[in-house]
Amino acid sequence: MIELVGYTAAVCTSLSFLPQALKVLKTKDTQSLSLVMYSVFTFGVMMWLSYGILLNDLPMILANVLTFILAFFILLMKIKNNKKDKLADQAGHQ
Amino acid sequence: MIELVGYTAAVCTSLSFLPQALKVLKTKDTQSLSLVMYSVFTFGVMMWLSYGILLNDLPMILANVLTFILAFFILLMKIKNNKKDKLADQAGHQ
Repeated sequence: MIELVGYTAAVCTSLSFLPQALKVLKTKDTQSLSLVMYSVFTFGVMMWLSYGILLNDLPMILANVLTFILAFFILLMKIKNNKKDKLADQAGHQ
Repeated sequence: MIELVGYTAAVCTSLSFLPQALKVLKTKDTQSLSLVMYSVFTFGVMMWLSYGILLNDLPMILANVLTFILAFFILLMKIKNNKKDKLADQAGHQ
């Protein structure tokens, strides 16, 4: 029962990045996404993945490989748009 | 040493939502944020928090209380702007 709560948590927080990645893919819009968030988050997921490898924990490894792919894709799209996004932020663009 | 990797991971993935929350607070812009992502993610963090409470794991509880506050704030701002954001998405707004 307790493990079910943990698995539900892992599936939700990992899979949640799928609709965000699809939205970015579809709209090419990353303006309100934070570059610092996705940099720190992607690094954090790499650390979770390393932790899973060190502990030999397969569910942790699989969940974090998936999250890493999604977060890294969003990060790359944000980096690509960053100059344009910054200018738009400064112009108070909504 | 292995625990240090885990703690670094937890701090990074929790704290990463702070710059995103600050960006939303400053710009009021949530257009490129995915409503589905923040709904599923916030629910997932609530599950991680429940898991931490069930396991009596204080670091897990503290990290997820912080992440929950940040993610829930971003979710509320997204819900508030959702109608406007959808119209702008349909108009191919960048």
